[in-house]
Amino acid sequence: MRSTASGAGEAARPAGACGIPSPPGRASRTTPSCGPLLGPAIERTDGDDMGSDTGIWILGGYQTDFARNFGREGKGVHDLVQEAVEGTLADAGTRAADMEVIHVGNAFGQLFTGQGHLGAMPATVVPELWGVPASRHEAACASGSIATLSAMADLEAGRYGCALVVGAEIEKTVPGDTAAAHLGAAAWVGHEGEDATFVWPWMFSALADEYDRRYGLDDAHLRAIAELNHRNAKANPLAQARGWTFDEKSFSDDDEHNPVVDGRTRRTDCSQVTDGGAGVVLATDGWVREHPEVLRRGTAVRILGWGHRTVGLPLAAKTQREDGPYVLSHVADTIRDAFDRAGVAEATDLDGIETHDCFSMSEYMAIDHFGITPPGDSWKAIEAGDLERDGRIPVNPSGGLIGGGHPVGATGVRMLVDASRQVTGRAGETQVEDASRFATLNIGGSTATTCAFVVGRA
Amino acid sequence: MRSTASGAGEAARPAGACGIPSPPGRASRTTPSCGPLLGPAIERTDGDDMGSDTGIWILGGYQTDFARNFGREGKGVHDLVQEAVEGTLADAGTRAADMEVIHVGNAFGQLFTGQGHLGAMPATVVPELWGVPASRHEAACASGSIATLSAMADLEAGRYGCALVVGAEIEKTVPGDTAAAHLGAAAWVGHEGEDATFVWPWMFSALADEYDRRYGLDDAHLRAIAELNHRNAKANPLAQARGWTFDEKSFSDDDEHNPVVDGRTRRTDCSQVTDGGAGVVLATDGWVREHPEVLRRGTAVRILGWGHRTVGLPLAAKTQREDGPYVLSHVADTIRDAFDRAGVAEATDLDGIETHDCFSMSEYMAIDHFGITPPGDSWKAIEAGDLERDGRIPVNPSGGLIGGGHPVGATGVRMLVDASRQVTGRAGETQVEDASRFATLNIGGSTATTCAFVVGRA
Repeated sequence: MRSTASGAGEAARPAGACGIPSPPGRASRTTPSCGPLLGPAIERTDGDDMGSDTGIWILGGYQTDFARNFGREGKGVHDLVQEAVEGTLADAGTRAADMEVIHVGNAFGQLFTGQGHLGAMPATVVPELWGVPASRHEAACASGSIATLSAMADLEAGRYGCALVVGAEIEKTVPGDTAAAHLGAAAWVGHEGEDATFVWPWMFSALADEYDRRYGLDDAHLRAIAELNHRNAKANPLAQARGWTFDEKSFSDDDEHNPVVDGRTRRTDCSQVTDGGAGVVLATDGWVREHPEVLRRGTAVRILGWGHRTVGLPLAAKTQREDGPYVLSHVADTIRDAFDRAGVAEATDLDGIETHDCFSMSEYMAIDHFGITPPGDSWKAIEAGDLERDGRIPVNPSGGLIGGGHPVGATGVRMLVDASRQVTGRAGETQVEDASRFATLNIGGSTATTCAFVVGRA
Repeated sequence: MRSTASGAGEAARPAGACGIPSPPGRASRTTPSCGPLLGPAIERTDGDDMGSDTGIWILGGYQTDFARNFGREGKGVHDLVQEAVEGTLADAGTRAADMEVIHVGNAFGQLFTGQGHLGAMPATVVPELWGVPASRHEAACASGSIATLSAMADLEAGRYGCALVVGAEIEKTVPGDTAAAHLGAAAWVGHEGEDATFVWPWMFSALADEYDRRYGLDDAHLRAIAELNHRNAKANPLAQARGWTFDEKSFSDDDEHNPVVDGRTRRTDCSQVTDGGAGVVLATDGWVREHPEVLRRGTAVRILGWGHRTVGLPLAAKTQREDGPYVLSHVADTIRDAFDRAGVAEATDLDGIETHDCFSMSEYMAIDHFGITPPGDSWKAIEAGDLERDGRIPVNPSGGLIGGGHPVGATGVRMLVDASRQVTGRAGETQVEDASRFATLNIGGSTATTCAFVVGRA
């Protein structure tokens, strides 16, 4: 049984209020609410009238250019972390000396660069951070979200008032097949995917097969997701693929122009090996009250809600559970937790979503798991144009992972940066008009670790 | 400037009250106190009269036999995690269904076993943990302490009431020189230790050189630390080296019987490659109040205080700072933070310490940094027999890392298990008579990540 956070009683919505039904028998894990973050507190911007010391703000954020190749520039992970830290502090209008705790998300540093212990890297390259308690968190492709959740817990606990979160990954150090092998460390090694040429394209192809079995799946819809993400990326000056060129067959089932990688996953269905970093500065209501100048910059947003569920590593054990209408019920639970904490009834109450599209299939899954369509009907939202930047519920206006890039440990943080830029009207050509509330969904492995956030205008 | 946790004002001792002087100019990072954990609350055992919902208990813990070789048994990291989880739950008198969040400490899994994403391993091998939010934390040899701190933050924040912490490491999968190279990922790769045959023996030899430069150092005192840890390990039925045999020259400077590994570090000065796991169940005052049966088992202790500081990766940058009497001033700060939060005035107010002795030199450093002697005088405590199990302040009665074993990601958790067993009178032949308060010190890399805890009798 879950305990209930103090103050949750009056603020929490009943489970299922977000429009995602609670399947029978899965309601025992109740969701403590982000109580103090709900309702009137969201509107308070003067820093003088906030009722809580534990509501969490994102004061600003930064993303490196995901098209860069750090090795080719003669740079290493320390340069990446330094740029991410300095850029993040500057955007948030904070100084290194303001940082009271540091959380770093990184998934595969020891494999790609030989460098572990990255919690200590910020203090290595930014002397003013010497002595600040720091940690590194790894949850495969969800590492950045786990780092964020851990920083939030430190703040909510009253340990610290202001936290730096950095996600960083260098991957372009090895040939593609070696990179694919490294990424396999996030599956259950030796227990699944052993027949695969490439573990993850194979894994998400298997997820597509499961959808096909349950609901039918036309692969043209996967190609359409890839095409939209690449099209969106063109407008994003930090996107990895913004300058790539495609022809009319790039998003088809033409074996020459869009070759099969594994199973039904083709080249443009895949996010690509990426170097990159991202960061956010988080602060409590109490800290913001003492530093009201941070709100006058127009960069601050609130974290309205979050969800986090972890299940076993193997994909088969997930899809074979018969406990509800969703192919991956724990993913729906994660999203519902975030919605409930944020007081969001359903996906269309959001102005947009940055979701995990390591492959087009993971975004296809996210569409119905977010409740944009009923289970199995994701294709309808694609055909209706709902996901377009000016659609009913824009998904990945940044270009997502397929168009924007996927430096693994940075991705969850990058999503929060893009979501924050959207709700502060700073998203440039990727801007969703009048956005005030955005969600993220970040998954590690075959959704073994699943995290979601909702951020809102301050 | 650090913020101050609510309630800290009335409970915190002034900086320096722990007997470790505050060097000038380093007092700006104030220490939020564990307020609710101090004073009368420590004595409350009936579960009905606890004033706080955020004080943290260790309900029980478990350690695998560190002499085992999992590979030779045909077992893998999943078997190790399963045993650690099940053993921990049983010792704490809790069920898997009680666990609301899971934190896993693991340092080098991707290198030694190819397996990352270990936050999801408990749910992989213990079906009842399916869906419970989980994370993996890496801070080199301090990974287990970082996992514990992260679990505590989740509880203190009111997110959850009961947490499972597991530390696990499989290392006996590769030859010794490959293992040494893997462990090098915790230094600043490519920037230090490049002339070393073995990075860490070289690194702690360099620390010995720094002590020698400042205060003089007779290596016989390092050998004496190694000898004591091995002697203590004989009484510990879970210690890696409990059955090893030594002769009178094993702890000497005889090149044949105790060969040089690197610099002034000899074979018996080193902890050895180890497979092992450890776990604890943590709970809040509120959870314990709702489950009073857990206190009747005699296994529960309180976490009275903690400290956590992170500095840059390279050793040279640490020892070259001229900001106080300590060779590694941030280590003294970490211990002082833990002491202040726990209301401990000085080391001799403790009944014992489990400290990090990856090498005898790291324990030599810990002796004066804990304030057992003034800076540079660690040898005096060794000569006086202060550290013996029946001495003035027993250090590593378990055998520590040198005698007990050092499965890297498990070590910080194992220390808490041993400390908890000591203060509940369950330490068997390693028992320190009438122990009621124990501290731990766990370091990652060359102390880049440093964590300390104080636990006390419930």
